[in-house]
Amino acid sequence: MRSSAMRDMMSLTERPEVISLAGGLPETRTFPPELYAKLMGKVAAESTARALQYGPTEGMACTVKCIVEVMAAEGTSVDPDEVLVTTGGQQVIDLMCKTLIDPGDTIVAEAPTYPGAVPTFDAYQANVVQIEMDSDGMPIDELERTLDRLQDEGRGPKFIYTIPNFQNPAGVTMSLPRRHRLVEVAREREILVLEDNPYGLLRYEGEPLSTLHSLDALAAKRGGASDFIVYLGTFSKILSPGVRLGWAVAPRPVLEKLNLCKQGADLCSSPVTQLFVAAYFEERARGGARDGGLGGARSGTDGAGSNGDEPLWLAHLESLKELYRARRDVMLEALGEHFGSAASWTKPRGGLFIWATLPDYIDTTDLLARALESEAVAFVPGRAAYLDGRGASSMRLNFAGVGEEDIREGIKRIGKVVREQVGLFGTLTGAQPAERAGTRDAAAQDAEGRSDDPSMAQVVELPRREQRKAERRSR
Amino acid sequence: MRSSAMRDMMSLTERPEVISLAGGLPETRTFPPELYAKLMGKVAAESTARALQYGPTEGMACTVKCIVEVMAAEGTSVDPDEVLVTTGGQQVIDLMCKTLIDPGDTIVAEAPTYPGAVPTFDAYQANVVQIEMDSDGMPIDELERTLDRLQDEGRGPKFIYTIPNFQNPAGVTMSLPRRHRLVEVAREREILVLEDNPYGLLRYEGEPLSTLHSLDALAAKRGGASDFIVYLGTFSKILSPGVRLGWAVAPRPVLEKLNLCKQGADLCSSPVTQLFVAAYFEERARGGARDGGLGGARSGTDGAGSNGDEPLWLAHLESLKELYRARRDVMLEALGEHFGSAASWTKPRGGLFIWATLPDYIDTTDLLARALESEAVAFVPGRAAYLDGRGASSMRLNFAGVGEEDIREGIKRIGKVVREQVGLFGTLTGAQPAERAGTRDAAAQDAEGRSDDPSMAQVVELPRREQRKAERRSR
Repeated sequence: MRSSAMRDMMSLTERPEVISLAGGLPETRTFPPELYAKLMGKVAAESTARALQYGPTEGMACTVKCIVEVMAAEGTSVDPDEVLVTTGGQQVIDLMCKTLIDPGDTIVAEAPTYPGAVPTFDAYQANVVQIEMDSDGMPIDELERTLDRLQDEGRGPKFIYTIPNFQNPAGVTMSLPRRHRLVEVAREREILVLEDNPYGLLRYEGEPLSTLHSLDALAAKRGGASDFIVYLGTFSKILSPGVRLGWAVAPRPVLEKLNLCKQGADLCSSPVTQLFVAAYFEERARGGARDGGLGGARSGTDGAGSNGDEPLWLAHLESLKELYRARRDVMLEALGEHFGSAASWTKPRGGLFIWATLPDYIDTTDLLARALESEAVAFVPGRAAYLDGRGASSMRLNFAGVGEEDIREGIKRIGKVVREQVGLFGTLTGAQPAERAGTRDAAAQDAEGRSDDPSMAQVVELPRREQRKAERRSR
Repeated sequence: MRSSAMRDMMSLTERPEVISLAGGLPETRTFPPELYAKLMGKVAAESTARALQYGPTEGMACTVKCIVEVMAAEGTSVDPDEVLVTTGGQQVIDLMCKTLIDPGDTIVAEAPTYPGAVPTFDAYQANVVQIEMDSDGMPIDELERTLDRLQDEGRGPKFIYTIPNFQNPAGVTMSLPRRHRLVEVAREREILVLEDNPYGLLRYEGEPLSTLHSLDALAAKRGGASDFIVYLGTFSKILSPGVRLGWAVAPRPVLEKLNLCKQGADLCSSPVTQLFVAAYFEERARGGARDGGLGGARSGTDGAGSNGDEPLWLAHLESLKELYRARRDVMLEALGEHFGSAASWTKPRGGLFIWATLPDYIDTTDLLARALESEAVAFVPGRAAYLDGRGASSMRLNFAGVGEEDIREGIKRIGKVVREQVGLFGTLTGAQPAERAGTRDAAAQDAEGRSDDPSMAQVVELPRREQRKAERRSR
């Protein structure tokens, strides 16, 4: 019912006058219509009958080839036989639950966690234990203590769910030492880890960190195969969510079960969109792809289209990164201007989301109702990222899917509602609202991704206070 | 594991030299590539950004409009607000289980039932009770006795699953009196019925019969809304399985839950393919659509394309029906020639499948291995349509997805393997293989869809004998 009430509220965000910073939307307006028509024309000429027919459950070989290429760009080598093409990355989460979870089984996740995983975990009646993150992602020592406790209680987890890069919603990234340690823990205890990595290639600063899959494959010494990592990838954030194509890379016994469950779920993913993706990955950019803006993506259409030396998808990715980096900076600036001292927020080095936290006495679910009604602006209230009612004073803000003007205006509107609430609190209680530092201009991070940005640490500590508060309430 | 072994075997059918009568494939080679390119070009020009973006979970309004149009062609009026667009019809079965089934819960289905539902029911650990069909579909008196028994045992079903038209795999159709009675039973006992209707519009002779949904809506007197029927529809058989688009029409409280589960399963179905379908449904045929062959489908591309007075999708449907009717007749003729007296089979009045039954001593799972290895031909062994090991001497044959020459050659090859097995049995036992009547040339059927064709009755009685055999074995 919580999810359902949430959806009702979110459906209001579809009114045209609403500025929505709520969705997990990437920008799709920069994809050239001529390129879309060209790629579909190519599919039509070569494979109309195949596009319209059922495909194999595991996915078409031409699409798996693209996936291997994307994984290689993430520094991760995979065997095409260990790939399952899915209907969006979301389906991987669903299939993992379907394969592994009986009602009451435990999943360990981050706190906060991906709001879209919450209804899935709910549907399978999983018992989700969430580990508080700090600015370096999930603390593995805390994870180990939790695993010890769960084991003592006879309810060890079926899998650990993590988003190591630019986490949705918190925006934080797991440091390299923690990645190494997480893989060791998985191997020592023989626990599967679901590595959800939609945003890894959307890094706006700093060096990429190894995937858990590649670290486990190194340890496994089985020629690139991993023992305990189920990797979730998707075309949604590097190309388009509308194609509804993601993938799992998994150890064979797990892959076999995921495949069987996918058969029962939707038989196969769309050959229409699989062939579209394959055609897209064959395109080459014609020079100048990296020299700014959307030139790269556009250049694929003005001529032979296959005589450059860089894949078009990489050029398009570069253009998306420039666009999102600029939008992130606009949102950070607007937050500084309009949220001011009443809030703190993360400064993500990639991905789509900023996580902002308001004073404890503000409930962002109530705030959303007010923001929608009086200011026609939307965000995701923090509670959606928890299964236990925490997160009440936080919100997720998407900076990727809306233009800079709408970001400025949207944050200004939310800021107005926030200030009204803070003022109201002062009036009602006579108290002076607590000051809260904004983000630092540049979060320092060493080569292994370890952060020393106290503002992030401050933000992600917040839920712990809320947890205590929730505990007090439940007494 | 059974499903998995089956899949391994089925993957052999993808070798190019194999004639496969196994898949549930429609014919997609008659869809004009120029039309595909044209429709996609239209989507590109008007809505590239929307196509590539996430869509609403419930489906896009333009696609729901097409669904309402298809349902109207089935004589069934539905409210767009009661429609959920899904990732193929298969997803409706999955979502129904996800919404309603806890491990051990009961589902009542037909015997045999759709082989693709079997792994889904398995995945949710449902307890499936299958009701033997006869030539008029599921006998409702037998259903009622079963419901009484289940209720006495405290395990009343969460829903009843039926394919009333040209059932997959048996090819039989539920008569109108039984439809009326089934709806009464559902209303009296307040049990949901999942009406799976992919083939209703693919009728090659006789008059269409009312859907369960329309009968229940009549009884409910709520302006077209049904109380107890969840209707499953799909574009797979009237347009393309490759678009992976189906739908559910359900009473609101059920629809709400299906929507929530779909959110967790794959967020939304592909806007790329939804907009393609919407563009397709806007096309008009330019005269001559019904005057033979594929002219209708082709005519949509040779000109303005929107100045005819018949929707192109209906013209294309007519051309598919002519094609499939002819292929069905070719398969029936080939069965008479090559299976002869050793087998019996159904003569479906629509749909994609013929169900053939061989002497009891032949196990079609073994036969498939032999047929693939020595004759490079494939079918679906009957066991795949049961959850209890029955169906061992039957097979499902698809006549829709392969050309006439391949149908003749495929049936000839299977016939050869069958005759070898029959001969082997005679050699080993000294017994004379039993004669078994083939199908009648024309199955009589009255205006209410009641059949008087004894050959169908004979075929569908078979499993009962097998059941007794299975019971003997299990003692």
